[in-house]
Amino acid sequence: MTQTTATDETATSQSEHIAQLDRSHVFHSWSAQAQISPLPVAGAEGSYFWDYSGRRYLDFSSQLVNVNIGHQHPKLIAAIQEQAARLATIAPSFANDARSEAARLIAELAPGDLNKVFFTNGGAEANENALRMARLHTGRHKVLAAYRSYHGSTAGAITATGDPRRWGSEPAISGVVHYWGPYQYRSPFHAESEEQECERALAHLRDTLMVEGAHTVAAIILEPVVGTNGILVPPENYLAGVRAICDEFGIMLIADEVMAGFGRCGEWFAVDRWNVTPDLITFAKGVNSGYLPLGGVIISAKIASTFDNVPYPGGLTYSGHPLACASAVASINIFKEEKIVENARTLGTDVIGPLLKQVADRHPSVGEVRGLGVFWALELVTDRETRQPLVPFNASGESAAAMTKFTAECKRRGLWPFVHFNRTHVVPPCTITAEDARQGIEMLDEALFVADEHYTGA
Amino acid sequence: MTQTTATDETATSQSEHIAQLDRSHVFHSWSAQAQISPLPVAGAEGSYFWDYSGRRYLDFSSQLVNVNIGHQHPKLIAAIQEQAARLATIAPSFANDARSEAARLIAELAPGDLNKVFFTNGGAEANENALRMARLHTGRHKVLAAYRSYHGSTAGAITATGDPRRWGSEPAISGVVHYWGPYQYRSPFHAESEEQECERALAHLRDTLMVEGAHTVAAIILEPVVGTNGILVPPENYLAGVRAICDEFGIMLIADEVMAGFGRCGEWFAVDRWNVTPDLITFAKGVNSGYLPLGGVIISAKIASTFDNVPYPGGLTYSGHPLACASAVASINIFKEEKIVENARTLGTDVIGPLLKQVADRHPSVGEVRGLGVFWALELVTDRETRQPLVPFNASGESAAAMTKFTAECKRRGLWPFVHFNRTHVVPPCTITAEDARQGIEMLDEALFVADEHYTGA
Repeated sequence: MTQTTATDETATSQSEHIAQLDRSHVFHSWSAQAQISPLPVAGAEGSYFWDYSGRRYLDFSSQLVNVNIGHQHPKLIAAIQEQAARLATIAPSFANDARSEAARLIAELAPGDLNKVFFTNGGAEANENALRMARLHTGRHKVLAAYRSYHGSTAGAITATGDPRRWGSEPAISGVVHYWGPYQYRSPFHAESEEQECERALAHLRDTLMVEGAHTVAAIILEPVVGTNGILVPPENYLAGVRAICDEFGIMLIADEVMAGFGRCGEWFAVDRWNVTPDLITFAKGVNSGYLPLGGVIISAKIASTFDNVPYPGGLTYSGHPLACASAVASINIFKEEKIVENARTLGTDVIGPLLKQVADRHPSVGEVRGLGVFWALELVTDRETRQPLVPFNASGESAAAMTKFTAECKRRGLWPFVHFNRTHVVPPCTITAEDARQGIEMLDEALFVADEHYTGA
Repeated sequence: MTQTTATDETATSQSEHIAQLDRSHVFHSWSAQAQISPLPVAGAEGSYFWDYSGRRYLDFSSQLVNVNIGHQHPKLIAAIQEQAARLATIAPSFANDARSEAARLIAELAPGDLNKVFFTNGGAEANENALRMARLHTGRHKVLAAYRSYHGSTAGAITATGDPRRWGSEPAISGVVHYWGPYQYRSPFHAESEEQECERALAHLRDTLMVEGAHTVAAIILEPVVGTNGILVPPENYLAGVRAICDEFGIMLIADEVMAGFGRCGEWFAVDRWNVTPDLITFAKGVNSGYLPLGGVIISAKIASTFDNVPYPGGLTYSGHPLACASAVASINIFKEEKIVENARTLGTDVIGPLLKQVADRHPSVGEVRGLGVFWALELVTDRETRQPLVPFNASGESAAAMTKFTAECKRRGLWPFVHFNRTHVVPPCTITAEDARQGIEMLDEALFVADEHYTGA
């Protein structure tokens, strides 16, 4: 029997107190409130966080794929503390050094003539404003968005979202049309090669524009690398093809880089990998690793000039919040000093990619491994031939049991995984060490035997 | 000629540098970008902020009516610094001590059985989620909102908004119907007393529900005291009357307390003044004075239980952000220790109200003074008999010249005013001293001679 010390007892009662207050008073995102028991987290550092019993978890989720710099980076914390002492907040109508410098740094990183930044509190508001800018700039109403996508949960952003999270909010805004993006492993176009998938996906997009009336479409919004809906890395020429179609029809291209940007793909922005310049880039998460709520839209000179002499009809109390902007300035500078983007890229090519491919070889349930940087998915199946998903689309409760058991097994081994439908994503901080990445993948490897038990293929 | 010191030069060049970066890279809320020159703010403390030349302004706007605790409150800053060192962020799916305690404190302050808190980043997202909750709880689609209102700028919140800021975003969500609320000075109902205004406003609301079909209406959303659209304090029995109508038809009452709550009206929540319990309260701004972006929805037991076993279809990465929640905990505790709500109430009854009434006596252009707590409006007119507004509804450019000149005169005298249409609002921090309030009102008094020049009445 373990001896219980006074400190243990204090920690346990503290944890229970936090959990009890949570269940009495906190209403949680995307949850059936009576069916959850959120784990009280006591602290975090780097790629780890821990509970009140001292149990540590290696964070293979970066929380919600946002803690790109890792937990509690000392220099970033110090910068927040320093700015708090100087000036926590000021209204959007003023100028402010932290706001100016954050905008300058972000514009400098952005491709092409995307030189102005409209700051928001997060990704949903960023997408809301990007849609509004595109509509007002073009004078058109319709928006095309991918079925396999997530863009946020406010009325505009949730309508653009293609995944089932939008169902509970329908009908929301008008004029959003969903299309199918490329996804070679489960090709909507019955393609047999990457080139064919690319060609057919672009033809499908062009056909959709034909029947919708391209001249009625203000924008195409897409995640350059689709995030929660599968880490779908596009075929080599797809984004350039979408860009060309947008140019042909005067349609604005909105790249939602909320999850893919700021190091996640081993690039500052995912579009950099394909040298494509969107008209609008939306960002959040990795820009400051969510140490404070912050997001925004980076705007092309052409779109910005539409609002030179006509007021832009959108805003928010905390646009360009000094404390949030100071955390972005510090984070971007730390990224440069510590070569965090480069680290993410190398981890993908030299460590995570190769190791995950070895894992796949050992586990029949792993149908595909795909990704780049620190942005990887393992697609779990019951049969490699038919590619039948381990659990059905949007499964919950009993029908999701195989994934639930796999998740529990990861946690039991000290790994906090990211799980969505029949996939687990490997999305640790961009600052994770090769050794920690290796250890995490070992735990994943062991947990995958649980998934293999559900394999029914040959 | 003033001698220029090295320090002056440094400050000037710093200010110019910030302004230049701002104009190159920051896209501002609600603005024609080429027509603004935002003032670089160097620092702030209590009820004052200052620019790089050392010029101080008494903040009669509390920025965007959010810095209720005043600028840079040392205890609040210390609490933010301390939490940053402990744990800046953690995903919404975990429990966290700062989040639990913030929810407990807010639920404790809220009336009735409003015991659960869904945290967002600000007021717009709070209203988006309140609308979604009301719709899903009732199974109905329509929402009634007041013409004289502002609820935020995301697609759902901007549709609920009644003022011209929604025009640039239309059409947005479906199912929102606007009605006229009480406004005795410009009665939409030709009422001649407060009782009559109340009775007729309720009759109008009831008529609107009749023709819309009350059984199709999920919610009525309103600001208990209308904020930016005029600081419209409702007649004594109005809110209780709306509550009774909601009860009669099974309609959810959403009180948008984003601006009116957390001390602004000399109450924790504006509804407390009339002992009315809404089904949902939305908050932001004053909860932590915007030192970090934070908002939320306080949810009745009845509505919360709808999502006990059915997942709530909404969420956001930074829901219940630990650093933001810690700032709310500290702010609420400071409010209690320093009796800030009581201070706001007494300032209204003993200082601001009486002084503004004296100011009105001296200036024919002041048509009405109204308000409570630290939430006051002066309605400026060209004629007290006809009540013709000093500038037209939604005026800009030349047609707004009288208000522009008045604003410039306030600033010249060291007062930063809040101005909307033909009104100036007196909305300083809840912590302002009686002496500072008096000085600010003196400056306002002097600036009002500029408005008087436009008076054409008898």
